[in-house]
Amino acid sequence: MTRGVVLPRAQAPVVVTDLALPEPAPGQVLIKMEACGICHSDLFIAAMEKPPLVPLVLGHEGIGRIQKLGAEVSSFAPGDRVGVTFLASTCGACEWCCSGRERYCPRQLNAGYTTHGALAGYVAVSAQYLARVPEGLGAVEAAPMCCAGWTTYRAVKETGLPPGGTVAIFGMGGLGHLAVQFARHARLRVAAVDVSEEKLALARGVGAEIVVMAENAVRTLQREHGGMDAAVVLTGAGTAVGQALRSLKRCGTLVLVGLAHGSVEFPAVDAVLKGITVRGSFIGTRQDLEEVFRLAAAGAIHPQIEPCALDEAPCLFERLRRGEMLGRGVISF
Amino acid sequence: MTRGVVLPRAQAPVVVTDLALPEPAPGQVLIKMEACGICHSDLFIAAMEKPPLVPLVLGHEGIGRIQKLGAEVSSFAPGDRVGVTFLASTCGACEWCCSGRERYCPRQLNAGYTTHGALAGYVAVSAQYLARVPEGLGAVEAAPMCCAGWTTYRAVKETGLPPGGTVAIFGMGGLGHLAVQFARHARLRVAAVDVSEEKLALARGVGAEIVVMAENAVRTLQREHGGMDAAVVLTGAGTAVGQALRSLKRCGTLVLVGLAHGSVEFPAVDAVLKGITVRGSFIGTRQDLEEVFRLAAAGAIHPQIEPCALDEAPCLFERLRRGEMLGRGVISF
Amino acid sequence: MTRGVVLPRAQAPVVVTDLALPEPAPGQVLIKMEACGICHSDLFIAAMEKPPLVPLVLGHEGIGRIQKLGAEVSSFAPGDRVGVTFLASTCGACEWCCSGRERYCPRQLNAGYTTHGALAGYVAVSAQYLARVPEGLGAVEAAPMCCAGWTTYRAVKETGLPPGGTVAIFGMGGLGHLAVQFARHARLRVAAVDVSEEKLALARGVGAEIVVMAENAVRTLQREHGGMDAAVVLTGAGTAVGQALRSLKRCGTLVLVGLAHGSVEFPAVDAVLKGITVRGSFIGTRQDLEEVFRLAAAGAIHPQIEPCALDEAPCLFERLRRGEMLGRGVISF
Amino acid sequence: MTRGVVLPRAQAPVVVTDLALPEPAPGQVLIKMEACGICHSDLFIAAMEKPPLVPLVLGHEGIGRIQKLGAEVSSFAPGDRVGVTFLASTCGACEWCCSGRERYCPRQLNAGYTTHGALAGYVAVSAQYLARVPEGLGAVEAAPMCCAGWTTYRAVKETGLPPGGTVAIFGMGGLGHLAVQFARHARLRVAAVDVSEEKLALARGVGAEIVVMAENAVRTLQREHGGMDAAVVLTGAGTAVGQALRSLKRCGTLVLVGLAHGSVEFPAVDAVLKGITVRGSFIGTRQDLEEVFRLAAAGAIHPQIEPCALDEAPCLFERLRRGEMLGRGVISF
Repeated sequence: MTRGVVLPRAQAPVVVTDLALPEPAPGQVLIKMEACGICHSDLFIAAMEKPPLVPLVLGHEGIGRIQKLGAEVSSFAPGDRVGVTFLASTCGACEWCCSGRERYCPRQLNAGYTTHGALAGYVAVSAQYLARVPEGLGAVEAAPMCCAGWTTYRAVKETGLPPGGTVAIFGMGGLGHLAVQFARHARLRVAAVDVSEEKLALARGVGAEIVVMAENAVRTLQREHGGMDAAVVLTGAGTAVGQALRSLKRCGTLVLVGLAHGSVEFPAVDAVLKGITVRGSFIGTRQDLEEVFRLAAAGAIHPQIEPCALDEAPCLFERLRRGEMLGRGVISF
Repeated sequence: MTRGVVLPRAQAPVVVTDLALPEPAPGQVLIKMEACGICHSDLFIAAMEKPPLVPLVLGHEGIGRIQKLGAEVSSFAPGDRVGVTFLASTCGACEWCCSGRERYCPRQLNAGYTTHGALAGYVAVSAQYLARVPEGLGAVEAAPMCCAGWTTYRAVKETGLPPGGTVAIFGMGGLGHLAVQFARHARLRVAAVDVSEEKLALARGVGAEIVVMAENAVRTLQREHGGMDAAVVLTGAGTAVGQALRSLKRCGTLVLVGLAHGSVEFPAVDAVLKGITVRGSFIGTRQDLEEVFRLAAAGAIHPQIEPCALDEAPCLFERLRRGEMLGRGVISF
Repeated sequence: MTRGVVLPRAQAPVVVTDLALPEPAPGQVLIKMEACGICHSDLFIAAMEKPPLVPLVLGHEGIGRIQKLGAEVSSFAPGDRVGVTFLASTCGACEWCCSGRERYCPRQLNAGYTTHGALAGYVAVSAQYLARVPEGLGAVEAAPMCCAGWTTYRAVKETGLPPGGTVAIFGMGGLGHLAVQFARHARLRVAAVDVSEEKLALARGVGAEIVVMAENAVRTLQREHGGMDAAVVLTGAGTAVGQALRSLKRCGTLVLVGLAHGSVEFPAVDAVLKGITVRGSFIGTRQDLEEVFRLAAAGAIHPQIEPCALDEAPCLFERLRRGEMLGRGVISF
Repeated sequence: MTRGVVLPRAQAPVVVTDLALPEPAPGQVLIKMEACGICHSDLFIAAMEKPPLVPLVLGHEGIGRIQKLGAEVSSFAPGDRVGVTFLASTCGACEWCCSGRERYCPRQLNAGYTTHGALAGYVAVSAQYLARVPEGLGAVEAAPMCCAGWTTYRAVKETGLPPGGTVAIFGMGGLGHLAVQFARHARLRVAAVDVSEEKLALARGVGAEIVVMAENAVRTLQREHGGMDAAVVLTGAGTAVGQALRSLKRCGTLVLVGLAHGSVEFPAVDAVLKGITVRGSFIGTRQDLEEVFRLAAAGAIHPQIEPCALDEAPCLFERLRRGEMLGRGVISF
């Protein structure tokens, strides 16, 4: 027996419950989890009208150690330390898998969404996309690298900026404070934008050179800083896309990560007349994930963590929903 | 004396009026115009609350012959046949001018907008960006190349598609029917989308393999054709951006050209989860314009023209405003 | 029992010999071959001092029909028509496999080189990289698509040229005459270069607009045509690299495909002062191969074939070695 | 009257001689020079059989202050501090000028080569490409930024590597020690390669993590470091191109800057089978130069300088020819 965080049915509160110890199927491994972070996507899945799989073990940001191999697994050995991400498996044959864009495979399975996730003491997951995790990195610090770190590292790369470029990061939560650090590490000049003074103070603490309230972002970034070379939108607030786009210089790049449901303001005329490029970006590549772990192990990136026990998970979900979390909530097992 | 199409003051009807024969200033040339097309942008400028220059000679799609050189002009000779485009001059020194993106120069002047345009018998314009026009090409056919042809040729290039790729063109007016032809010439498979059956018939006539009413575009292009590799939005209708984006395959590219004023529907979640790239595109490069004239002279592109006399210009403006023009209206002088 | 073309030991003449009917291992399929082409690489392997595997069934350009599935093969069914290429299998996990560049996987196996190939009546090969072949395409015409077609299609793509660009193709043998056709299909203007008048005549016949003897290439292409936007070197002659590079315009692109052993003339000073890009290109991507078969089935590409019976294979190898083949030699089974 | 370093005729020793005080022609400015570096290209020009202009004032790496404006110069004022580079002027109209690649303009003039250069107390040069130089930066430290810094900054950018990538720099003279610093600043891991232990010690001092003698480079970089993502060749030694190419990982990038006269070893087979890209790179863009001055002014880059008086110039040329200079020789006026 083990225990985990489960969505029992659509739109129900998550519960911590007993689970049978899973047996790894062919291609899977059994992992004893050390820690797993909680992500906005977990909230999003819990709120879906028709989630694809219930009851569902949530979680896609987990660190653990392999206990047992299923049949046909040769790439790992028991004792290996691994990270579980949202990308559980892909088809390996479609045009996206064949061209280095497997993260857009239409037949992918996603941990904690279309297949069971990592928020449990023991989990059996596909070995295909497990990442190796450096031994020197604490599990609680490593966990957010699997989703928040991975996603923001790729998003900063998607700006395509060389050292010295300027980037505005919209949204200073669990993703944003990591994006600032990755951008700073890449020698970019960073403006952090949020609606919360407290979160802007956090951004300043991790290296943002400019901090600005969302309502003033366009005016400040244009008038005082000549416009940004790029912007990254990590928040799902519908107004942020328009603000970010209007903060750009001509020929600037806007990277979209936040899932903005409902109405999104999109200044199409600006996009045309200024030659703007907008790029959607979803998680990252396998090489990105390796690089993220290397940077974290080297001490270049410091996630802001709020560590919790398993029983606190439902409470953590509630606080995340209310926007009350400053750093990343991570459950230890 | 000469005569031309003038916007007398903000939001007034355009008039055909007598004009003093202009004298070319240093860096300018005097051109005897042969023909000039009428563009949606002319309407847009005539409708502005505060146009930058009134009274204003409109027009930025003109063909003529140089009559006289101003001081310091060495790149042309009297008798040279040239095309007048929207890009009248740039600063030559900003980061956009220095990096092959002069069309986004913030200090550019625009013919028929911030400086006098080409809708007159004789015009004096900057020699900097005049294009050479092949002798074998009729003036009336050549005129639309200066804006409608140039802009759509670049827009199709911005899709980045190799031969065999699929592209949906949204908006089948003066720009759309040229975009279809450029895309077909580049060996793309083309879906034409519009709200008018009559315009779709025109698209079919110039080579579109798929034609679909806008309201059915997403369903038809996704279900029957597996999604498009790219889409180009030429209309200013606010719904087209969302339709075009949702017609794309994963990792598809959306090129925006139409100036969609008012509310634009932007499905940001699709853009993120499908890894979509959106690119605004404004006019084109000087090399693009040369290539467009070469293609037109070689007979690869056939603009649909409605030729008119100068006195009919006000009436043409009115019909364009009502969406009643099928081809491009071109004034002969 | 079946029969095939075998390299019995290093640097020995190839022989046609009896072979046991192979049994497909897990992950493999048994294919009844219809046709298989002979490639310069076969010669190269037969001439190696220490080939990695002897005796070796040669051949990596074969078309056939699946007779029987090995264990764990679910992507094909008996009766499927498939093509065998040089890329037999890859590791699926290295940085090249993970980034759409699996053709550079260091752990790849190659048919007819490090694993048995397709020059036999029946072969058992990995199902991983088999390509589906359209039913309407004759086996003899389809065979060269698996290597000569695939490689040259990718090479032309690597030039990155838009329609209207100019490309010189150096080497007009089994690869060159296909490269000309792919380039023409992509609306490029093509100059064909070779040391044989007979091969240049073939190039003219398949659409080359300029044909020039290698010794005159630089002077003719520079003086009369203003330099080329790109060049593709398909021959292994060491002088061709330098000639091709010097035929380019400033900022031109040189794509290298031919394996030039021995001394290669490389004008490094030209490369620097003219901002030249040189790209090595090896076979192609899986999507390229699909596109090649689609183009061949649509009649856009016509390979020049010299069809032969199996027993003629040793003689064909000898003629290829002597440079006496005009089209592609293809064995029918 | 003023004095300067002059090449009196082809292949003659350079001399320090009296010069008439020049008068700025239209489009030119008169500059009172503060300092000017001496570059390998100066040697190269002095050694040419038929230099385009003799007698010739050499020098293209100079810092000074504008004394007087010629006619038609509006972009500078007397007192402005500027840098003179090799790119004296371009045509502004060719396809390279129009596409952000003006450094490849075939009609460019080059200071100290096809027009008089900056190695004199007072010089009159075109205002077109003068760079603004930050006041806080010493003239002697600023001078090498105009050529050695500019060129190597662009070369490192041409590798296209993101932070964390590995790059080998071949050649540790006046260019190499700056390239190491630019690469380190861009968060690359740097291997320095040279034939001199003394120069490798200098490379170690400015941040190279790996240093290796040229004869061991391929073996060491492949076996101990898994191959490099990119290499930059700054030396003109003909063997370096082959060594650098063979030091790369599959799909690696080789940037060529050094002008390798005579025979160059080019392993074309490796380039093909490993999918290598080779890029020639000449000086840089105007934006690069601005960025270089900003980095130097911010203290991120420390050129190794050997300051000299004007009369020592002939001796400096001789020592540079013999390979005896460790840092950059810079003349003060």
